[in-house]
Amino acid sequence: MATMASLFLKTPGPSQSLPKTHKTHFVLPQNLPLSWRSKYRAGPAAAVRIRCGLIDPDGGKLVELIVEEPQRDLKRRQALSLPQIKLSKIDIQWVHVLSEGWASPLKGFMRESEFLQTLHFNSLRLGDGSVVNMSVPIVLAIDDSNKNNIGDSSSVALVDDKDNPIAILNDIEIYKHNKEERTARTWGTTAPGLPYAEQAITHAGNWLIGGDLEVIEPIKYHDGLDRFRLSPAELRDEFTRRNADAVFAFQLRNPVHNGHALLMTDTRRRLLEMGYKNPVLLLHPLGGYTKADDVPLEWRMKQHEMVLEDGVLDPETTVVSIFPSPMHYAGPTEVQWHAKARINAGANFYIVGRDPAGMGHPLEKRDLYDADHGKKVLSMAPGLERLNILPFKVAAYDKTQNGMAFFDPSRPQDFLFISGTKMRALAKNKESPPDGFMCPGGWKVLVDYYDSLIPSENGRVPEPVPV
Amino acid sequence: MATMASLFLKTPGPSQSLPKTHKTHFVLPQNLPLSWRSKYRAGPAAAVRIRCGLIDPDGGKLVELIVEEPQRDLKRRQALSLPQIKLSKIDIQWVHVLSEGWASPLKGFMRESEFLQTLHFNSLRLGDGSVVNMSVPIVLAIDDSNKNNIGDSSSVALVDDKDNPIAILNDIEIYKHNKEERTARTWGTTAPGLPYAEQAITHAGNWLIGGDLEVIEPIKYHDGLDRFRLSPAELRDEFTRRNADAVFAFQLRNPVHNGHALLMTDTRRRLLEMGYKNPVLLLHPLGGYTKADDVPLEWRMKQHEMVLEDGVLDPETTVVSIFPSPMHYAGPTEVQWHAKARINAGANFYIVGRDPAGMGHPLEKRDLYDADHGKKVLSMAPGLERLNILPFKVAAYDKTQNGMAFFDPSRPQDFLFISGTKMRALAKNKESPPDGFMCPGGWKVLVDYYDSLIPSENGRVPEPVPV
Repeated sequence: MATMASLFLKTPGPSQSLPKTHKTHFVLPQNLPLSWRSKYRAGPAAAVRIRCGLIDPDGGKLVELIVEEPQRDLKRRQALSLPQIKLSKIDIQWVHVLSEGWASPLKGFMRESEFLQTLHFNSLRLGDGSVVNMSVPIVLAIDDSNKNNIGDSSSVALVDDKDNPIAILNDIEIYKHNKEERTARTWGTTAPGLPYAEQAITHAGNWLIGGDLEVIEPIKYHDGLDRFRLSPAELRDEFTRRNADAVFAFQLRNPVHNGHALLMTDTRRRLLEMGYKNPVLLLHPLGGYTKADDVPLEWRMKQHEMVLEDGVLDPETTVVSIFPSPMHYAGPTEVQWHAKARINAGANFYIVGRDPAGMGHPLEKRDLYDADHGKKVLSMAPGLERLNILPFKVAAYDKTQNGMAFFDPSRPQDFLFISGTKMRALAKNKESPPDGFMCPGGWKVLVDYYDSLIPSENGRVPEPVPV
Repeated sequence: MATMASLFLKTPGPSQSLPKTHKTHFVLPQNLPLSWRSKYRAGPAAAVRIRCGLIDPDGGKLVELIVEEPQRDLKRRQALSLPQIKLSKIDIQWVHVLSEGWASPLKGFMRESEFLQTLHFNSLRLGDGSVVNMSVPIVLAIDDSNKNNIGDSSSVALVDDKDNPIAILNDIEIYKHNKEERTARTWGTTAPGLPYAEQAITHAGNWLIGGDLEVIEPIKYHDGLDRFRLSPAELRDEFTRRNADAVFAFQLRNPVHNGHALLMTDTRRRLLEMGYKNPVLLLHPLGGYTKADDVPLEWRMKQHEMVLEDGVLDPETTVVSIFPSPMHYAGPTEVQWHAKARINAGANFYIVGRDPAGMGHPLEKRDLYDADHGKKVLSMAPGLERLNILPFKVAAYDKTQNGMAFFDPSRPQDFLFISGTKMRALAKNKESPPDGFMCPGGWKVLVDYYDSLIPSENGRVPEPVPV
């Protein structure tokens, strides 16, 4: 009997039973279009080579920025003597990301040369001439009064909303925060209503401050989910412990349905066919800021737990962990970040879906990004040549099989597409999806979530808030 | 006595005398901050290596797309049988650019994979894994009726406004023209009022068509200036004929003043100091589309001619030619294109000014780009590693010397900055700039140009039109 502990790493609670019987109906999996890569990558088709050990982190070495225990008190005292910058929740999530090396080889918030390379080239050139991918600016905004307060100091303390020191930023560089240009080059639009921009850019200061980070202690959220937040180093250790010879990452910020499960199972099957002996899945829900109408992390984790208990995924070959990054919803630009960060955690295969990190256009009645651009851009992105991109096959509800299956274009009438919007509408109205779309336990979590948004006194269901 | 023919290549007219006496006053040149490059380029400082022969074109081979004479009639007849797309003036300028290999290794208007790489990475990865710079989309827009008309044809004919066939585009690919995203990622803004966008994007079709070009005959404009439009191959021949061991390119779209001349002379001096035996200047005014308030090409060429007659630049080591590209005014993005195209013409040094390809923000009272971002981005740009970037030293009018000189920050009170706006205002009002700012003959051309904008019947000077 598998235990939850082998799925959810570091789960301290009692083991739960994991029935192995599939409640879903699978059709025969088709081949994933790996050949796609050779079509869109300008270079020669990437040969998948089986190697010993995990893929190297970007820059060759995982950057870890957390101060060792014996120095922490010293650093706390030092922080008290420095000009202070108060961090927002999203800023702290970025400190978390940087501190564990998800953005290796970045050593702190970007200085201007890194910011410009990110905006213009989605990549950074290192001292040895090699190139790593870096598509999303990881920057810290400050306002005029912060800047004046810093004066000539070469270091600043970064503090939380209670003025507790979180980190020290050294050898700082302050430069202009051109919000319009940052937004245009990151999102390909400046339309008002981009969730991350509204949350973290529009009202932020007119300066950016870069430098080298020293993070005083590991970032914790004390929300009951810290045990699921494995660092890249911890994940690498776990993959090594399991003797993984391939790690395939699946980024998600939505509830898992049986179409996802089908895809992950099929991917493992294909990797085995390619000659890998032990491909391990990194099921990696995003844990940072998400927009208000996404399902919050804690509910998603409950849902994932129920789905996993249902036994759809093999606990021996699945690692579930939380990716601490905030969400940009920047489509083809952001999917590169999602992939790059997983290289640093040891993944050499990345599953990319339709319209990854996409959303509706804030003003126009269309998707902000072309649904295929994410996988195309990802396959051509500088610094990601080592990563094998696995485009997501479209799964839909097959009415002839009463379950999720890969879409068969020869019989479109048999398939039902259940979008995220449709799924949320059903759960809000306590309706059930068709049998086999999602395991009943997982579905109940979703219904419970929408139920928890109890109507206020005026009888209206309150708007969910971003987390 | 030097002749104009050695300055203006292919000038068929009689030689003109070139008095060698300097009418301007130079101060002792200071060193150009070549070391700047090592500061901003993430890689090791580029060592300037003296090599035999000219720098290789991007992709190793200059792409030339003009049909050989014996096949031209055949191609003209073939074009008559194909679906037709009517080209705008700007489209024809891009056909010109592509036909001569300025954009090598591009073989025609971009297909989607090239367009996406340009927007996201400002570079293209080639089949051998190497990377070339490509920052500005070179695309051809078509509308729904064009697209319907093309149907299943794999080739189309490109025709001018009189339906004369200009080129054939083969193995075509039609994809969506997301104008907002294109504009945002190219300019870093979507503000209405970007000259190129208003001229060539906003009212263009909703599709882009890429493919391989066959250009039926060399593009000519019959404006008396074709003789100055040397192709990259012709320029390379000329540099070779002159035994150039360094070629330094100076892109301009404004009248030349003595500050420019000082910079060019000083650059040559420094290249000689570095050990080059025969550095040659490519003085390379942009000849394609420019915005309405820029001085039109024909007047700029007259002005350049007068300045050169004044003997400020040595005809033996200067080649004047016209760069056929249209102007985007896209700052740090566009300056990469300006530099990359000059590599293809054989230049291994590129002089970059303050705020290259910049302009005022269309809506806000500020420059659209940070004045330093152009040179910073250029110095870090993928695919331009082989090019030596020479940042433009600031020249200003030195009142103690009555001439243009490199600005000396230790005595700012002695210097007068004469902006382009100020220069244009003086010329419009038939006022003279201070002695030594520009040679009198060159200044007279400017005054004549503004004079040519004769007041209309209502007594107002007509707005200049874009060319």
